[in-house]
Amino acid sequence: MPLARLSVPAHLAHEQALALADAVHQALVDTCRVPQDDRFQLITHFAPGTMLIHPSFGGVARSADACVVEICFLRGRSDDQKRALYRAIAERAQASGLRSDDVLVALVENGPIDWSLGRGKAYEAH
Amino acid sequence: MPLARLSVPAHLAHEQALALADAVHQALVDTCRVPQDDRFQLITHFAPGTMLIHPSFGGVARSADACVVEICFLRGRSDDQKRALYRAIAERAQASGLRSDDVLVALVENGPIDWSLGRGKAYEAH
Amino acid sequence: MPLARLSVPAHLAHEQALALADAVHQALVDTCRVPQDDRFQLITHFAPGTMLIHPSFGGVARSADACVVEICFLRGRSDDQKRALYRAIAERAQASGLRSDDVLVALVENGPIDWSLGRGKAYEAH
Repeated sequence: MPLARLSVPAHLAHEQALALADAVHQALVDTCRVPQDDRFQLITHFAPGTMLIHPSFGGVARSADACVVEICFLRGRSDDQKRALYRAIAERAQASGLRSDDVLVALVENGPIDWSLGRGKAYEAH
Repeated sequence: MPLARLSVPAHLAHEQALALADAVHQALVDTCRVPQDDRFQLITHFAPGTMLIHPSFGGVARSADACVVEICFLRGRSDDQKRALYRAIAERAQASGLRSDDVLVALVENGPIDWSLGRGKAYEAH
Repeated sequence: MPLARLSVPAHLAHEQALALADAVHQALVDTCRVPQDDRFQLITHFAPGTMLIHPSFGGVARSADACVVEICFLRGRSDDQKRALYRAIAERAQASGLRSDDVLVALVENGPIDWSLGRGKAYEAH
């Protein structure tokens, strides 16, 4: 019930994008108590010139492979869980062949009443 | 002034995507007091392999037609309004030919000062 | 560390989309104390029929060039800063050749712990 949007450059191999998606999901499972089956991710490949990403802001060195990961999930995760999430995404992304400097993450939160997983029912009802 | 993003699989006929957009908008009008003319929706078709959607999490049975509806709107809707919104979207989507299990909805909220509908003015000024 | 999504119609020249991106960024710098180098923007061109934008809701007159600008940034900006942001985006967009009626802006906010700019570290750590 996190919903993740992965924005990746068009030249990135789709296998690499999928590996990033795996990294993001497994990191959510490992650090934020997201159930293994609770996976909803959208991957968008961006044509050259449509991702305007500063190469060094924030003290990192981004390459042309830089990706943006936006996660919308339930509020209630602690600061420590979020710190662990970032570390886990970076470690797993790196293990899959991406540079950890090339993974930017932004979180947005909402509440249980803000999700319907289908069938016209609010998530709270599940 | 809700802004809705509809993410649909590439194989879905555009007419079906538009019918889902109609369903979402009319449900907002009917349940959340959104004015009929207050319609802003973006539809994105996703290539095979770029929507990673669990087929059954949350107790529903999703098909290859599963769609994701993200709505950003003004905070202040009650839980009951949100429950009614999910029901209305599902009923209208179903009437248009989609399965209600194939419609996932996520809401994010902001405030009146967080919108400019054009001309450089905050919405509050309208 | 604002993350901006610019949704523009496919027929819009990419140079025009880039000029809008410049307008948005410079307006953030000028009105919201965003550092000059803190630029992260994603531009998506939408095919005909996939942007459903009401032509006049909110008392403006939108054309086929209407664009949607979504900005996710740190909470804490005052209402006056947001009003100034909308004015500055509109003025700069207009100077670049867009009509100010054709620029809709929506803001969503999060906190410092909700960003990792890379290397697996929370932004707060920078």
